[in-house]
Amino acid sequence: MPSLNETHDPSLRSWVASANTGRSDFPLQNLPFAVFRRAGGGEPWRGGVAIGDQVLDLRAAAHVLQLPGAAGQALQAAAGETLNALMALGPVHWSALRLALSRALREGAGEAGALAPCLVPQAQVQHALPAQVGDYTDFYTSIHHATNIGRLFRPDNPLMPNYRWVPIGYHGRTSSLVVSGEAIGRPRGQLMPPGAAQPQLGASQRLDIELELGVFVGGGNARGEPIPVELAEQHVFGLCLLNDWSARDIQDWEYQPLGPFLSKNFATTLSPWVVTLEALAPYRAPLQRDAGEPGPLPYLDAPAVRSEGALDIQLEVLLQTPHMRAAGEGGARISRTSYRHAYWTVAQMVAHHTVNGCNLRPGDLLGTGTLSGPTLDQAAALIELTSGGKNPLALPGGETRTWLQDGDSVTLRGWCEAPGAARIGFGTCEGTVTA
Amino acid sequence: MPSLNETHDPSLRSWVASANTGRSDFPLQNLPFAVFRRAGGGEPWRGGVAIGDQVLDLRAAAHVLQLPGAAGQALQAAAGETLNALMALGPVHWSALRLALSRALREGAGEAGALAPCLVPQAQVQHALPAQVGDYTDFYTSIHHATNIGRLFRPDNPLMPNYRWVPIGYHGRTSSLVVSGEAIGRPRGQLMPPGAAQPQLGASQRLDIELELGVFVGGGNARGEPIPVELAEQHVFGLCLLNDWSARDIQDWEYQPLGPFLSKNFATTLSPWVVTLEALAPYRAPLQRDAGEPGPLPYLDAPAVRSEGALDIQLEVLLQTPHMRAAGEGGARISRTSYRHAYWTVAQMVAHHTVNGCNLRPGDLLGTGTLSGPTLDQAAALIELTSGGKNPLALPGGETRTWLQDGDSVTLRGWCEAPGAARIGFGTCEGTVTA
Repeated sequence: MPSLNETHDPSLRSWVASANTGRSDFPLQNLPFAVFRRAGGGEPWRGGVAIGDQVLDLRAAAHVLQLPGAAGQALQAAAGETLNALMALGPVHWSALRLALSRALREGAGEAGALAPCLVPQAQVQHALPAQVGDYTDFYTSIHHATNIGRLFRPDNPLMPNYRWVPIGYHGRTSSLVVSGEAIGRPRGQLMPPGAAQPQLGASQRLDIELELGVFVGGGNARGEPIPVELAEQHVFGLCLLNDWSARDIQDWEYQPLGPFLSKNFATTLSPWVVTLEALAPYRAPLQRDAGEPGPLPYLDAPAVRSEGALDIQLEVLLQTPHMRAAGEGGARISRTSYRHAYWTVAQMVAHHTVNGCNLRPGDLLGTGTLSGPTLDQAAALIELTSGGKNPLALPGGETRTWLQDGDSVTLRGWCEAPGAARIGFGTCEGTVTA
Repeated sequence: MPSLNETHDPSLRSWVASANTGRSDFPLQNLPFAVFRRAGGGEPWRGGVAIGDQVLDLRAAAHVLQLPGAAGQALQAAAGETLNALMALGPVHWSALRLALSRALREGAGEAGALAPCLVPQAQVQHALPAQVGDYTDFYTSIHHATNIGRLFRPDNPLMPNYRWVPIGYHGRTSSLVVSGEAIGRPRGQLMPPGAAQPQLGASQRLDIELELGVFVGGGNARGEPIPVELAEQHVFGLCLLNDWSARDIQDWEYQPLGPFLSKNFATTLSPWVVTLEALAPYRAPLQRDAGEPGPLPYLDAPAVRSEGALDIQLEVLLQTPHMRAAGEGGARISRTSYRHAYWTVAQMVAHHTVNGCNLRPGDLLGTGTLSGPTLDQAAALIELTSGGKNPLALPGGETRTWLQDGDSVTLRGWCEAPGAARIGFGTCEGTVTA
């Protein structure tokens, strides 16, 4: 697992002044990666690193920084149209590049003059997905979410017997992964209302969100060669925000016996910025298990998994209605939770996914599943927040919402804070529903 | 839908003599595509077309054939390391190339002298997957399979209420798609035997096969723009054989509530040859629905779907044990069925998949699901053939099998015959189980 080093020092300041305000998601201690280009131009996509309100253009930086060894290789790999090549290199290279960029962006760095022309204001860029995702797997790692959903269907026995043993997951759709800001068309599908004689095709009336984190796989494994849980984090590049849009009425009718399909695969939104696992090192937490929960099976267990396998990533969901937007108001917070409540960790997802020999590839994406916490205000989907649609949410200004309406905009945010560490953030993951 | 034309004339003969025996899977009327290279060499992968016992090297052919217009564009696209570019072009280009190759390979063709050096014996080549598969979706289109499986769990009510309305599907794994001939390692996973107090990690003891067809998507659709069922076949390049290896014990324990995952994603085998939808035109059949079955919803219905939406592709499964192999015996046939029994057609899979706006991309793969027919000998998985493991199969020589043993080899075959048409075949799709 990545350990604390000089790049985490909270006293570090950058010559990019906007990184030093204490309010930016992107201080020098973060250095997340994205793929971007200047908006409006036809220039190629390229890798970038966020610093304050700027993006450091890594394609340009590769021409002015003469980085030796692993850092130089990593910088070259990050200059391409996707981050897959960087992700494939592994933790030695990622760490070397992070250290080199941290030093080059520090106050007083000799590289400041050469690098300043490589900065582009974030307000002037557009983003593509960080990687070409070969496979996208969505897990179900919040026991609170699994219990809340199960209670709607089976009040007396909400949690399946396998939940406490198996990090449940299933394969999602890669073609409809989109980056923050892309519109989300309301999907049509077969709807079977209670009491209807037969289903009908129609627009979903129960459109929902799911607050998740996405995990980008770094170096992969060969088919037939499982990744041991002790080594699993060496195969993880970093994390982003993920909104798993869900049409609950389509899901209700279609999901048995093979799981969700058209209720999910119309769109999944990712934040553009990927925060590296190394940047997240100060915010580790012990694996959370209530008394009486069984320990993980040996292939999912290790001392470091128990002592610091979780990540305390603070998360919130903001909902902005068309009325709020017209009034110039920002979104209202409808959920506030943390990734530390998850039942299964990043390392356990990787170890479980590969225990049967399944091969992961650089740039593969793992979703954590809906990250609901233990209390109702920590629920991370409308189906939970409204008890299956029975209790509408009250919004500021007298509005209510049960499910998403056309024009509604949903924004996910994430950030980390810890004693003796800087505050770092994930930026935003936004999507607006269209008819 | 592709219609009959001169390329389907059963009297056509090729100057490649092995295509004219009446026993080859690859007469002039077939012309399936694959990706191949000469075994043992380091040459790049390239597209090829099967003719008799030879492969026509399309990279080489592109240098000697001066094809005009769409046929020439398609030949260039087929010369690359995958067939994605050819698949993206669409039916006008596919058809033009087929016609040009049919004419150039006919007895008496002026191109024979120039093309003969472009032939490579099939015995001397190795194959890669036909395309880089962006997403792989597996459907569940045999009502007989769904009923047989359901009966094992719910004897009184085997078929889910949604089955007759929804072409059920779910997303599978693309990273572990392999081409015929690659070994299949027995997967490990969590096993929860009846009566056990808790699950244990172990090698699957209930390893199974599923006989399916794979459908390669041609031209895709933009996100948010469904493909109407009437136009769906214009987005289909062709079909191959597919073995969806399945670990039933892992599946039993993991599959609720989100569907199969590690029980399937350790390996899925494809045949190297993709038979184009145009080559399959003579073997169309009416949609099969028993009396009393509801008609498809309008978005899944069209006159051509009902009159000729099905395909009469004959299918069989051969099982060769290590004992048979040592004795020099071929595999024993354990199942014999046809794709015409499927409840949902290729066009219906495409229309359903995109009705919510989900985007398909060139080279995407759709599995039909296990193609069991109405009788037990037409069941296309061991779990059905053995009634869930209770009735072992009797094999020649006194051997029996309930589930696959190490060293067992499974071969799928497919072919088409119809009055007034040639017999064409799919070649083989083979995999051998290793410990």
